[in-house]
Parts: sequence; structure tokens; C-alpha cells
Amino acid sequence: MKNEDVMNLARKRGFLWSSFEIYSGSAGFFDYGPLGATLKNKVMNKWRDYYVIREGFYEIESPTIMPEESLKASGHVDHFNDAMTQCKDCMDVYRADHVIKEATGKEVEGLENQELTEILSEDKIRCPKCGGHLTHVWSYNLMFQTLIGAKGKKTGYMRPETAQGIFIPFKRLLRFFRGKLPFGVVQLGKAYRNEISPRQGMIRLREFTQAEAEIFVDPRDKSHPHFSRVAEELLTLYPASCQEAGDEPIQITARKAVDENIVASELLTYQLSLARSFLMELGLSEDVLRFRQHMSTEMAHYAIDCWDVEVYTDRYGWIEVIGIADRTDFDLKSHSDYSKEDLRVFLEYPEPQIVKKLTVKANMGKFGPLFKGDAPMILKALEEIDSEAIKKALEEEGVFQLELQGNKYQITSDLIGFQMVEETVRGEKIYPHVIEPSYGIDRIVYSVLLHSYVQEEDRTYFKLPADVAPVEVNIFPLVNRDELVAVTLQILGDLRKEGIICEKDTSGTIGRRYARSDEIGVPFAVTVDHQSLEDDTVTIRERDSQKQVRASIQDLPQTLKLLISGKKELRELETGK
Amino acid sequence: MKNEDVMNLARKRGFLWSSFEIYSGSAGFFDYGPLGATLKNKVMNKWRDYYVIREGFYEIESPTIMPEESLKASGHVDHFNDAMTQCKDCMDVYRADHVIKEATGKEVEGLENQELTEILSEDKIRCPKCGGHLTHVWSYNLMFQTLIGAKGKKTGYMRPETAQGIFIPFKRLLRFFRGKLPFGVVQLGKAYRNEISPRQGMIRLREFTQAEAEIFVDPRDKSHPHFSRVAEELLTLYPASCQEAGDEPIQITARKAVDENIVASELLTYQLSLARSFLMELGLSEDVLRFRQHMSTEMAHYAIDCWDVEVYTDRYGWIEVIGIADRTDFDLKSHSDYSKEDLRVFLEYPEPQIVKKLTVKANMGKFGPLFKGDAPMILKALEEIDSEAIKKALEEEGVFQLELQGNKYQITSDLIGFQMVEETVRGEKIYPHVIEPSYGIDRIVYSVLLHSYVQEEDRTYFKLPADVAPVEVNIFPLVNRDELVAVTLQILGDLRKEGIICEKDTSGTIGRRYARSDEIGVPFAVTVDHQSLEDDTVTIRERDSQKQVRASIQDLPQTLKLLISGKKELRELETGK
Repeated sequence: MKNEDVMNLARKRGFLWSSFEIYSGSAGFFDYGPLGATLKNKVMNKWRDYYVIREGFYEIESPTIMPEESLKASGHVDHFNDAMTQCKDCMDVYRADHVIKEATGKEVEGLENQELTEILSEDKIRCPKCGGHLTHVWSYNLMFQTLIGAKGKKTGYMRPETAQGIFIPFKRLLRFFRGKLPFGVVQLGKAYRNEISPRQGMIRLREFTQAEAEIFVDPRDKSHPHFSRVAEELLTLYPASCQEAGDEPIQITARKAVDENIVASELLTYQLSLARSFLMELGLSEDVLRFRQHMSTEMAHYAIDCWDVEVYTDRYGWIEVIGIADRTDFDLKSHSDYSKEDLRVFLEYPEPQIVKKLTVKANMGKFGPLFKGDAPMILKALEEIDSEAIKKALEEEGVFQLELQGNKYQITSDLIGFQMVEETVRGEKIYPHVIEPSYGIDRIVYSVLLHSYVQEEDRTYFKLPADVAPVEVNIFPLVNRDELVAVTLQILGDLRKEGIICEKDTSGTIGRRYARSDEIGVPFAVTVDHQSLEDDTVTIRERDSQKQVRASIQDLPQTLKLLISGKKELRELETGK
Repeated sequence: MKNEDVMNLARKRGFLWSSFEIYSGSAGFFDYGPLGATLKNKVMNKWRDYYVIREGFYEIESPTIMPEESLKASGHVDHFNDAMTQCKDCMDVYRADHVIKEATGKEVEGLENQELTEILSEDKIRCPKCGGHLTHVWSYNLMFQTLIGAKGKKTGYMRPETAQGIFIPFKRLLRFFRGKLPFGVVQLGKAYRNEISPRQGMIRLREFTQAEAEIFVDPRDKSHPHFSRVAEELLTLYPASCQEAGDEPIQITARKAVDENIVASELLTYQLSLARSFLMELGLSEDVLRFRQHMSTEMAHYAIDCWDVEVYTDRYGWIEVIGIADRTDFDLKSHSDYSKEDLRVFLEYPEPQIVKKLTVKANMGKFGPLFKGDAPMILKALEEIDSEAIKKALEEEGVFQLELQGNKYQITSDLIGFQMVEETVRGEKIYPHVIEPSYGIDRIVYSVLLHSYVQEEDRTYFKLPADVAPVEVNIFPLVNRDELVAVTLQILGDLRKEGIICEKDTSGTIGRRYARSDEIGVPFAVTVDHQSLEDDTVTIRERDSQKQVRASIQDLPQTLKLLISGKKELRELETGK
């Protein structure tokens, strides 16, 4: 399988390996080695190019440890669970839905524990490993729990997603953006899920890296100002209806996807297009990408629409690498409710509106003497209640019952009157809606390695795009002579000074060195030969075409920068010469 | 105090604030807001420029959650403790050394719990808050603990430093570097300490960001190949001897610091110089920097030499922002011992060495019949023992006693003979030594904000170096006219396309906008005015000098890039015109 070849090469050459190997490992944890970490950083920086520089969103960084209250509000403490069962004999534990699916093929996502227990019992499902009896199903919270501080032992959790760190300081962020919608805030960082038994390599990690954007928008307007830029792009969509009907995904333009209501809004569709461009710039081709809409059973109850960006893999089938959702006002409302902080935004109307409003006016000659010291408090309470309701009660029942701090007050029509007043209303307070593209960086790195892996008759290599390759240039002296090595070191220094990631390799035949260099995906190799000493030129060899051209040493940093960024192609150098 | 002014401004404008404010906060956790996160990223990228690009080290990324075994080996499970005491009345908890120091002025770092308990009792020290009695002193582990997985409940901890993640996969790293020393590996990422009661803002965080380099070197050669590059730099050193004598720090060249044995090696001194350059490029001046050597009482028992790079702050005094240590072979040896993996490196001698060696030769005519089936095993055991010792025993006692798997064998001189043989030895296996510069990124960001803060009569601003400022360019239309706004948006798009972080500001007087822009440290402001519409030029205003020059719109991205990177100065534009 390609997956195994890729992971073997990745391990051997220093991209990725299982963590804590000398302590017999720990499932669900991976190390990014020297090449892997650099590749990952480049993927994250490209993400920042897209979301921070081009879209103009701002990055923030919040803690990975979160106190319990904050995750109560988000629902993670109560609902971020897997339904679990354990074998009474071998004591191994399983996700109940996995065991059931394996044994019967039934899709049982979303069922209650009680229902799952019944299925296990009715279908006589046993431990897949030893055939033992399984326990009743219980909920297992997927967050890593810890205790904060020495005193009081406050419960905390490792965050299950970076998103919450953006919602919690929303008031500060709103102030930073001077109270105006729309605005976008992003966070890149670690998130954690204490998976029951992760057995899927890079696909199911207990510690992973997310890049999430939370885009706060006016709920009444989900058009995108730059939608025309992406409108004609062809997207491969797999709508819920197609999935239900057992049909294939469809190809459709972004414009049509919105017009035909396949995707809920321009805002969401724009994000689909951004995700597609991003993945394609990383070297993934159209035919291994698709957008799958969440079925009604899997979509969060509060979401309006939700799409997974999926990449095809030989080992795991289609895997989700990005989720794009319209989360509505769910998160801000929940945090408002829990924290008692008003997280609404004041949205000004285009023009102030004059509205007529019925107001209560006390007849103080009677009102004052009757209620004495309580009078101001009672009047204030009446002013805050909808005057129409008070009027209606007086008309229909002759009295309005006011209950205030445990006391009851009878308000009769002799005590108050009504007045119609005009008020100028400049706007209203609303909860913004949130559009969230959520990228799983580890799965993206895995997909990039998987799909850039090329096996040719005489060589095996990662065909990584030049600007994401972890080593950009490899420099070889043709033979190990002092003069050539000196020029090599000079070039190495010059390129590093210009921020180019480069290495030298002086051992083995030149063919062997090209092979080693290709294997880790270095896009350009520079060879210093005898001619270099005479005319200050070197050869540049391109990994993919294996073509070579001569170039001047003096211009080398500039030339390579243009080649790496894709602003120039190798053949242009040739003709230029 | 400057600290308070800086933190207030930082909070107000979106650099930094306490996390989880709407849930009444959680001590020891900070959010980096939009400007703070960008500043921090820039500091980290500059660090990568230094250590990854220029020094040629490689970055890796290992998990923040670590299984217990791995931290047993490093000593953190048993020794990463604070000595604690609790008030029996108000139940507040304290670090015992803090309480003692506050009450008596005594420095008690390094004392045992029993000794601390005695001091508390003898000196009649009470709770600093309520005067209540204090409990005996116990050890409190500073790691956040958690459980990994649903089954078996394996203990894990949030890593207390990023360094261990480099030592554990050492064999993989050694292979990546093809078995050759020296090489350097770095890691940037989160580390955690569950402080008892952090009350010092950004200085004592429970979750913080480190940038650490582990440089693996041949223990027999601690010279640095590029030491001459830094040899004449003047360093402000505060050696342990000066501290003990109550003297002031000294100014000395790097060369002299090595020659006079003030710093242990060229390798360490080179790191001091690198740290100094790094901090000065971030805008910190010589007079707020010093290198303080660890006193023998505070230095880890295994370290050869250890220096803290300290920055002066008005609120907290001198604070450590970087630690630079020669950790010897402690870490690799510990992990070898614990994991039973050989983490040594084979170091080839410059020339193979021929050594003469006494070896045992069995007299098989007697040896075989006597020991029968055990003979090969016994012979193998004898070959592994130092032959000189066997010879000596035979000469002195007439017999050599061999104990093997519980059995005793009498080896007499009729059974074996000796032979002198020549062996070619190509090298030997050794544990590399580790030079470790460990940077505290949060404290560095704090120091940069603190020392870039300028209060002038009519303005307050962060004088951040242009290349680390979170917003690099602010663009203003002089008045809010459509034509000027259109040009502003055009420029904004052009600059962003070139990767320049820029914003526009259209509200308020131009003076107010300059003030707001200065306040957050934007180095350059571009103003679009009526003349812009006629001759396609704008003004560029420099934050620090407040000088303005006109520049062409067409060249603006290039011009600003040169200004931001410091390759050109504003006055050069003027003369160029």
C-alpha cells in the first residue's frame, strides 16, 4: 500500500515517526522530525498567507489548558463523549458504534447509550478480539483532564479545539475591531482528544494541530463582497441529498452552488473555494478532493450548513481534512448565558429610525402617597415592562399585578396613565453569526506526503511544490576537492543569508546524491564543478524534470528565489542565457 | 510604574490580556491578542532565522503530553517540585521558601522539607495573610498531570520543557545527521508548570512558550569553528565570583571570557553572543542586558556551566529571559539507563589505532572434556572479562573463580593460556555533550514591549523595530472622499499581495490617526491625498522621527519592504528624489 511506503520513507528520512519509541511508544502521538516539522511550518505559513495576509484576519493565541467553566459553556464537558463498551473477559475497551458497525454494518451514530446497549445485547455482539461478553454502554469524555493550581484543585482540560479560545475573549476582539462587523480572527495551535484506542497513524491523533478561522458576520447578510472572484470556479460537491440517494458527487460552479441553494450562502461557498485553492497549491489534485455536506444526522443541531473537505487515501478512504460550517450564534450565545456577559454587537442602522412607543406615566399625586419609599422602584419596574401589556391588563381586568422582590403590588388605572412618545433608534444589539473553516494540519501534511509520493523505475521521491519542500536547495561539489568544497560552502552561506533553506552533500557519487536529494523532495540541486572555478557558474538541476541548466553564482540567490516561489521556470533561464 | 502603563496599553490595544476574563480569569494564563500574537510570531520567526537558517540547526516538533516513563528518566517526576506549606486557618497555600524569605530574609533554596519545617517552627513563622499556623512542608510536583487513554489509565504529564522531546528520539535524529557530530536540533512550543500561585503577570505563567536548541557536541572538543566572528564582542558578565563578593558585573570581550576561564568554553560563549545579538535586534539596549552565571548552589548538579541572560524591569528587577547551559551527557545517559537503548555516538578516530591486547586462549584438550556442554559459554564469558585480571588471579592465587548463571567454575592455569594480539580500533562510542540555549519567548515579548514603550509630551508609543512590529504599514486617505478611499484600497491590496502586514484607517483627523498608529508601534504610515490623484505619489511618514517624504505609488511595495527590513532609510528616499 502507498500509505505504508510513504510512512516508511517518512520515518527513514526524518519526516515523521511515532513518539516515545524508546519507551515502547504511546498510541496517538507523533513526532515531526527535522523534515516533517519544516514541511508543517511551511503549510502553516501558507495558511497564514491565505487567511491573515490576504483575507486580512488577525491571529490570536489562547491557552491550551482551559478551566472547566469555559468548556461547560461550549458543551464539551457534557457532550464531548464517545459511547464506550468494555469486554468483561479481556478488559479491552471499544467505541460501541465501531463494534456494532463491524459486527452488523449498522450506522448507529447519534443513538443514546441505552439504545446502543440494547443493540449489543439483541444482536448478540461479542468482543471482536476474544469473543467475551461486553458491558453496558457508557459515556467517555474525550478531553484530557487535569487540575490547575495547588489549592482548591480547580478542574481544567486540554482544549478540544482552538475555536473556543476565540469566542471567550470576544468582547476584547470586538473592541480591537472597533465594534464593527464583519471581522475574522484565527488561531493555529494544538488541540487534544483522548481517543479510546487510536490505531490509524496520522489520521487519529490524541494531540493534533488545528488552524481555525472564526469569521463574525451580520446574520442578516451572508453575501460575500468578493464572491465574484470565485464564482466561476468548479467545485466537486457531494450534497447530503446525493449521499442519501446513493448518487455520485457533482461538479458545479460556486455561483450555481449558491443560486441552487446547494450551499447555504456565499460566505460558506467562498470558504469552500479558498480551501480548494489552498490544497491545490500544496500539490493535491482535483481528483483526490471533494466537498461532502454533513447529513442531517451528523450535523450539529445549531449549524445551518456544514461541509467536510475530503481527501482520498488508499488506506483510509476519504478522510476529512477541513470542516467548514455556519455555526450561527450558538457559541457566543452559550458563553453569554454562562458568563452573564453581554457578547452582542451593536449594529447601527443605515439611517436612524424613529419609532413610536407607548410609555407609562405615573399619577404621582396618588402613586407617591400609596407606595411611599417603594414608589421610584415600582415606577422603574413598570417602565421596563412592555407598556402595551400593562394597558391590556388594565383594560381587561382593571388591575395589573406587579411582583417585585417577593412583594405584590396592585396597579390600578387611577395610579398611572399612558403616553405615546417618539424615540430615535440608531440600531440594535445582535449576536453575530460565525462562519468557521477548521483545518486539520496533521491530516493535510499527511495528504501532501501521500499524494506527492512518486515511484518511478529508477527513483522514488516526494514531488513537493518547491515552496513547501522542507529543504529547498541541495548543493554538491562534483568531487571532494578543496577548491570545489570551498565554493560550495560560500554558496551555502550566501543562500542561507537570503533565507533559503539549503544543505550540502559531499559523500557518494553524484548520482547517489541526486537520488537522496530527490527522495526527500528537494526541488533544486546545485552542482559545483571544475567549470565553476573558471567561469563562476554552476548547474541547477530540477527534481521533477531532471533537467539541468547553468547559472551564474553571483545571481544564484535571486535565481533560486524566483524558481522556488514559482515566479520563474527553469527553461526560462535556459532561453535567457 | 512603567510595567502598569505598558500592560494597560497592551490590554487596551489588543496585545495581551488575562485569559478567561468572562469566567473571572485563571491565574497564570494570558491571551495574545491580534497584535500580541503577531509580535510573538515575529519574535519566533526571527529566532528561526538565527538558529535554523543561519546556524543550520533543524526544527522538530514533539508532543506536549508525555507518558510518565519518559519524565521519570529526566528526573521531573521525582524532582520537579516546590516545597509547600498551607495555613491551617485560611487554607491558603504558599511556597515555603517564599514565606521564610518574606518573614526572615533567609535564602533557603535547596533545603530539604524537614529543614524547612523546622525553620517555620523555630522562627515562629505564621500565615502572611491571616496569621494562622502553617502545616509541615511537603513536595508539590509542578507538572500538570493527566491520564492517557480509556483503558489502563496511563499517567501522563504536560511537558515541563521542550528539551526532552529532542533527547527521546535522539537515535532517529542521529541517523538523520548520518551519525556525525556536532549537530543542533531545536524546538519551539508550549511548556507547562503548574505554579502554586502565580501573581507576576507575564513573568510567571502556567503555560508558556519556549524556544530551545540542543546542540550535540564531541565532549573532547568545545571550541567553536566560528568563534572568531564573535571574539571581539563586549559582553556584560556577572560571574558567580562577582556575585559572591558583592561586586558589580564586568565588561569583557568574548575572547577574554574564554581565555580567562570565566565562561567554560567557546561553545557556551558563542551562545551568549548569539543571545545578545538576538535581543538587541529586538530593540533591547545593552544597558538593560546582562549575563549572570549560576551560583554553585543553584546550578544543576550535572551542568558544567550555566548562564542566565537577564533583562532589567522596573517591576520585577532583573528577570531571566534565556538560560544557556552545558548540560554534559546527563540527559542522554539518563534516557539510555531508563530505556535500555544505547544513545551513544560512534566517534571515528582521525586515524585507526592499533592496540595490543592480551587475550585468553583455551587449552581445548583439557577445557572441553572438563566443562563439556558449558565449555563454549564459559569461554565466551572469559573472553569478555579483562584478561589481565584473570592472569593476575592465576599468578597470585593459582585459580580464577568464575560465577556464571549461579554456577561456580574453577579456572586453573592448565585450562587456559594467554596470547598478545593486535587490534585495529577505528573509534569509540561516547555520549555527546549538550549545549542548550533555552529562550523564554513570553518574557522576551514582555521585555520588548516594556523597553520599546516611549512616553513623549504629546504621544505614547511602542518604538518596535520595523521588522517585528505587528502592523507594518497603516494607510490613510487624508479625507474620506471616494477617490482617495479607492486609491487607499488599491494600495492595501497591492501591499498585502507582497506579504506586507498593513491596515487602513479612515476615521478621525489625520493627527488622531497618526497617534493611534504610533501607539501600537506601526513604523510607517502612508497618506493618500489630493496630490496622489494627480501624480501617483503618497507620503510615507516614519513613526520615530515623524518625518515625511513623498514616494511613488507604483514602487510603494518595494520601497516599504526595503524600509521595513532596514535595508534603506527614509532619508535616502528623500535624497534619491
